[in-house]
Amino acid sequence: MAIPKDIRIDLPPEGIPKRWYNLAADIGQLEPPLNPGTRKPASPEDFEAIFCKEIIRQEGSAERYIDIPEEVRDNLVYLNRPAPLQRAYRLERSLKTPAKIYFKREDMSPLGSHKGNTALAQAYFNAEAGIHTLTTETGAGQWGTALAMVSNLFDIDCTVFMVRGSFEQKPTRKALMRTYGATVHASPSPQTEFGKKVLKEHPETTGSLGIAISEACEMAAKDPNICYSLGSVLNHVMLHQTVIGQETMEQMRIGGIEPDYLIACAGGGSNFGGFAFPMLGEKIQGRTDCQFIAAESKAAPSLTEGEFKYDFGDTAGFTPLLMMYTLGQEFIPKGIHAGGLRYHGMAPLVSAAMDKGLITARAYEQLETFEAGMAFARTEGMVPAPESCHAVKAAIDIALECKEKKEEKTIVFCMSGHGMLDLYGYEQYLDGTMQDSSV
Amino acid sequence: MAIPKDIRIDLPPEGIPKRWYNLAADIGQLEPPLNPGTRKPASPEDFEAIFCKEIIRQEGSAERYIDIPEEVRDNLVYLNRPAPLQRAYRLERSLKTPAKIYFKREDMSPLGSHKGNTALAQAYFNAEAGIHTLTTETGAGQWGTALAMVSNLFDIDCTVFMVRGSFEQKPTRKALMRTYGATVHASPSPQTEFGKKVLKEHPETTGSLGIAISEACEMAAKDPNICYSLGSVLNHVMLHQTVIGQETMEQMRIGGIEPDYLIACAGGGSNFGGFAFPMLGEKIQGRTDCQFIAAESKAAPSLTEGEFKYDFGDTAGFTPLLMMYTLGQEFIPKGIHAGGLRYHGMAPLVSAAMDKGLITARAYEQLETFEAGMAFARTEGMVPAPESCHAVKAAIDIALECKEKKEEKTIVFCMSGHGMLDLYGYEQYLDGTMQDSSV
Repeated sequence: MAIPKDIRIDLPPEGIPKRWYNLAADIGQLEPPLNPGTRKPASPEDFEAIFCKEIIRQEGSAERYIDIPEEVRDNLVYLNRPAPLQRAYRLERSLKTPAKIYFKREDMSPLGSHKGNTALAQAYFNAEAGIHTLTTETGAGQWGTALAMVSNLFDIDCTVFMVRGSFEQKPTRKALMRTYGATVHASPSPQTEFGKKVLKEHPETTGSLGIAISEACEMAAKDPNICYSLGSVLNHVMLHQTVIGQETMEQMRIGGIEPDYLIACAGGGSNFGGFAFPMLGEKIQGRTDCQFIAAESKAAPSLTEGEFKYDFGDTAGFTPLLMMYTLGQEFIPKGIHAGGLRYHGMAPLVSAAMDKGLITARAYEQLETFEAGMAFARTEGMVPAPESCHAVKAAIDIALECKEKKEEKTIVFCMSGHGMLDLYGYEQYLDGTMQDSSV
Repeated sequence: MAIPKDIRIDLPPEGIPKRWYNLAADIGQLEPPLNPGTRKPASPEDFEAIFCKEIIRQEGSAERYIDIPEEVRDNLVYLNRPAPLQRAYRLERSLKTPAKIYFKREDMSPLGSHKGNTALAQAYFNAEAGIHTLTTETGAGQWGTALAMVSNLFDIDCTVFMVRGSFEQKPTRKALMRTYGATVHASPSPQTEFGKKVLKEHPETTGSLGIAISEACEMAAKDPNICYSLGSVLNHVMLHQTVIGQETMEQMRIGGIEPDYLIACAGGGSNFGGFAFPMLGEKIQGRTDCQFIAAESKAAPSLTEGEFKYDFGDTAGFTPLLMMYTLGQEFIPKGIHAGGLRYHGMAPLVSAAMDKGLITARAYEQLETFEAGMAFARTEGMVPAPESCHAVKAAIDIALECKEKKEEKTIVFCMSGHGMLDLYGYEQYLDGTMQDSSV
């Protein structure tokens, strides 16, 4: 098969965006986070124990654009930005669809996913504020790895509380964080008061993301030179991820590509928001009628089955309450390979876009997403991360709908990461031992 | 730290070379391979049972350039070619060296290493010849993965004989090949006569690369529509890999970079040859006095401790004899994480360059190479493959020699692959349980 020359649209290093796009400027007044004690709107001071001032400012900002500091732009090169936009010709051909399918390649980062974009920005602002250590929690390890890696770029330390179950079951993920120089504790740990308390009450516990968040926040709150870093959900995280969508828009402009569908998987919302928000701003301004689809897991279907209400960000109820689509703070999802899609809630900005009818969502079972990932690997040559398989599945479904209707639509989706660290999932799929979350 | 704008030199898709460079044209008459039965120079017909005609023609060619078919060039995009050339500013700074260090990014392939460059070319020529199935052997799985992936691009099947020990210990590598659609057999297998014989005599064996080669060749020899594919050592493999070195030369030209040292790790020689040969041709023509360094493992130090003589390519003695630096066909290297550097011999073209004094070699122990890999991960943000750690170690050593001598030399090395599938090695290093091969 002859490969057309326009298969990949690259941008030069200067193509890294100069400012972040803030959807909060265009989507209308957001419901504010509430202080968990008083249930009144949280003030910036409520966050000062764990976040540096610039991060808090960005979190509450309604400015449409926020300049990306030169040093952050320069360092994005270490995440292999700009990322290519590629056309999935071979997938199109195998589906016999008249639709065009493009994908944005966040898998090209040395971290294997999009997570580094906000990690890098957060590490920079904290280093500028004189913070010497960042703490965070991690489940499967992707976010902890991203923060561990970028901390080196700004000569700060990184401490990761890793859910004990993953700590024991995923030694190579732990090894990767340690290779990047991070200190990794199994959570609950004896390093914090909260961890000690949990260990005393439940010495055999395998931990939870909620417990790990509590430990990371406690460590940050105790020392003014230590801050906490979060990898999804909050407004400033969405903001930093908009480099993805802005690059994509520029690449679509260069390629003369007018999208009918923009698709990304959504767990906490950072990948979907980063990819979709810049174009969603165009939609709010009436400059496109592109449809936006969030692909989520049926194991944690916050957008398709959740309720839009105030809820805690964590399980224990320590964090501020956020106005979001949620399955409830106590919701415990089934164990699926797409660990990044197991969150009980959804980013307030993504939730607001859903509430206003600007975006739609589709939820998928595990098996059908891996089937899509297999089809993608065999046609396009790269193995998608289990999370990204949800976006692939949605893109394939829409391409097949186009075939049915004989419509030459243009589909653009975000390949949020590769699956090189998730091959156990593919093995289970191939061996026929994988189950859907409904089973 | 401000990041200079010239940190990365990209080439556009049109920057993929239009022809392969053949060192055989410049290095002088090579000693021919010998028929294992007659010990006389092997004829092209000797190879026809397992290779297609075009591959055999390339193997024996002395033309300086061989055109790369348009379809091969187009499909190299699926390996994310052209690959960037990047400057390791942060590593330089951490070493306090006046030397400049650049690295070629073969880690950017979706396969994680350089192996796809020749796999793709071989799959193309075999598909053109009407071959419907390619067979090969694989140890750790990198080469098998590369052939499995590219076979899809040309709609042919791929059967991999994987050394039983790896098959059982590295299920995710096997899963990756199967995800790409390959049939994977544990070797020795009941699929071949030779496999059955070995299994009968040694039912508990964990297999060997030699046995797996024999099985793959047997399957190819039995059916005219099946051919065998080899991932290193032979001349046509070196040829296909020269896209690496040619891209690097063009990037050096664009960046005004004049290298004093070119460094690559060497196991069978395909990575070293592909990276170094185009520039080595320039050296033979008197157009550069750059030094070339092959970084090998002390576990299999063919160039530094081997003998230049005729030897078999496999353990069993079924293959033609090749004139090469070798530790002997029966040499069994210690188990090291750099599985790609455990071969007993060295490609005839690399060996000839060594014999003529055109290149030098340095051998390293496992621990010091992982130490170098750790330093690289923490400064430059990507984790090198264990094989590539040998090149990193050589680059660091030379940069430190430059510091000692206050010399502003320019070092360019090949990052042959990333270490995302080798994190167990890093874990061992971090835990202090790793040993050198001399222990």
